[in-house]
Amino acid sequence: MKISFTFEPKPAVQQELQQQFPTHDFRFGKGAAPERDTAIWVTYGEDVKVAAIENLPELQWISVASAGVEKMPLSLLHSKEIIVTNARGIHKTPMTESIIGHILAIYRNLPAIYTLKNEQTWEKPRGSKELRGSSALIVGPGAIGEEVGRVLTAFGVEVTGCNRSGKTIEGFSNTVSLEKLDDQLGSADIVICLLPSTPETHRLFTIEKFQLMKNTALFMNFGRGNVVSEKVLVEALKAGEIGGAVLDVFEVEPLPESSELWGLPNVVISPHVSSHSDFYVERAMEIFSRNLSKWEQGEIDLENQVDLKLGY
Amino acid sequence: MKISFTFEPKPAVQQELQQQFPTHDFRFGKGAAPERDTAIWVTYGEDVKVAAIENLPELQWISVASAGVEKMPLSLLHSKEIIVTNARGIHKTPMTESIIGHILAIYRNLPAIYTLKNEQTWEKPRGSKELRGSSALIVGPGAIGEEVGRVLTAFGVEVTGCNRSGKTIEGFSNTVSLEKLDDQLGSADIVICLLPSTPETHRLFTIEKFQLMKNTALFMNFGRGNVVSEKVLVEALKAGEIGGAVLDVFEVEPLPESSELWGLPNVVISPHVSSHSDFYVERAMEIFSRNLSKWEQGEIDLENQVDLKLGY
Repeated sequence: MKISFTFEPKPAVQQELQQQFPTHDFRFGKGAAPERDTAIWVTYGEDVKVAAIENLPELQWISVASAGVEKMPLSLLHSKEIIVTNARGIHKTPMTESIIGHILAIYRNLPAIYTLKNEQTWEKPRGSKELRGSSALIVGPGAIGEEVGRVLTAFGVEVTGCNRSGKTIEGFSNTVSLEKLDDQLGSADIVICLLPSTPETHRLFTIEKFQLMKNTALFMNFGRGNVVSEKVLVEALKAGEIGGAVLDVFEVEPLPESSELWGLPNVVISPHVSSHSDFYVERAMEIFSRNLSKWEQGEIDLENQVDLKLGY
Repeated sequence: MKISFTFEPKPAVQQELQQQFPTHDFRFGKGAAPERDTAIWVTYGEDVKVAAIENLPELQWISVASAGVEKMPLSLLHSKEIIVTNARGIHKTPMTESIIGHILAIYRNLPAIYTLKNEQTWEKPRGSKELRGSSALIVGPGAIGEEVGRVLTAFGVEVTGCNRSGKTIEGFSNTVSLEKLDDQLGSADIVICLLPSTPETHRLFTIEKFQLMKNTALFMNFGRGNVVSEKVLVEALKAGEIGGAVLDVFEVEPLPESSELWGLPNVVISPHVSSHSDFYVERAMEIFSRNLSKWEQGEIDLENQVDLKLGY
């Protein structure tokens, strides 16, 4: 069976795959299109387009080494019964560490401490707060949100989850369904959005949502940029509807130079780097290896299979 | 019984104390010396000098609303059988949040993210690391160190403690005695010093200690400034014996303008603010109230009593 990678893992990773699965024909090549007789396509996802798929008559499975699949032609893949798996979950550790790091940095005044150090000035900055005893609302808690909630709980934060079903999440104080989001927005000190990009979540965070939040609330978007329009976000921040924002994702990336977000003081712009990790490809390949073993055994219940109707 | 405060708690706190303990004669006054017939002296500690004590023949108990007592005439207090209690433990929450915040900020590249935001530049900074799987050595784990260790463990960090006795600490992977410190220095990614100031800990961190550490190690001093000389610290950093330092305490405070530490890139200077909290006085007064209730009952086993021989 031909397995085509449209990126190049490290030589050691390539060798390990070939040794582990000697009967398969592996092709590795950054930028090149998969060969026509490819059965399994391993990709970061950005090259999964209609034309490419139409050119692969034997394609059975696309293994995406990232989490977002929203830009792929999902209905075409669904109609062709092509399985799609992604690497969701491998972002869990680095993203949790980034999210909690940003929260603590703001609560404990680290940006001011860094500035004063650079100015070589000994001055005790005012306004540091304790995180313990505050409340966080995690909107869209999948693997990452559950991990963020678990760690926030260890800091003594009261964590509420808001997911599609309202299904209880272990360790969270409370979980509500997405329809009841508005009831929760007013009581959270920190609102952490980890929603995927779907028609339902598109620009979900309207100005009315920000008006419901505490004026001191910290809004964090680490899911997908299009859950809130930049215009609304700027409006909410300028009007003082919220206290600040930490943004890892944006409607348009790179964030245009002209964006007003750059100039707002209470905004942290993390240029879509919160999931960065030295272990990224390694972990994605672990998932792929486990799935390929299953595939060889004829199992169809693969790890991290994307529901092509729901889009995640 | 006369109880003299040489600082001024908020009016609400003063009223509460007077209501809770109506038989005592409370005096509140910032800067003023305690009246001669004071039996209990409540202070931040900086005014506890030999002359002041000699002037208070009825003094039985000094309640210090901070943690450090090293500048007090402890042997005089011991000889006069004056009880000293402090507020250790109330720093636990804010200091833990600051320490973990600094660690995550460095691991997840937040200083670079802030700089790029200020320069209005979209650029993905390189070099972010995962904290999970790293190892931390906590030197001097009292109430604060135990809390730091507990939270680090929730992040998947392997935590070793190093204390006077080597007594096991719940939740730590390992605990060794202070004599075995050198054996542990080489394997820690993060060395967190929380030692009190005693003759034993004075300049304990010699250049040899830094040479034993990993070249990538992050050294954090949140205990007392005199556990390491500034000269040694600068030397270790400049020679690359360690990867960086986060310092909340210094041999001389404020850190002199002439200090080379200001100019070193891998140094964070937190101007003795890690314990700052809105809840500080409130928590110190809770301890004082509990102790005063005990005192009224004739109990001598007070909370947070300082061992005047050991100095903490």
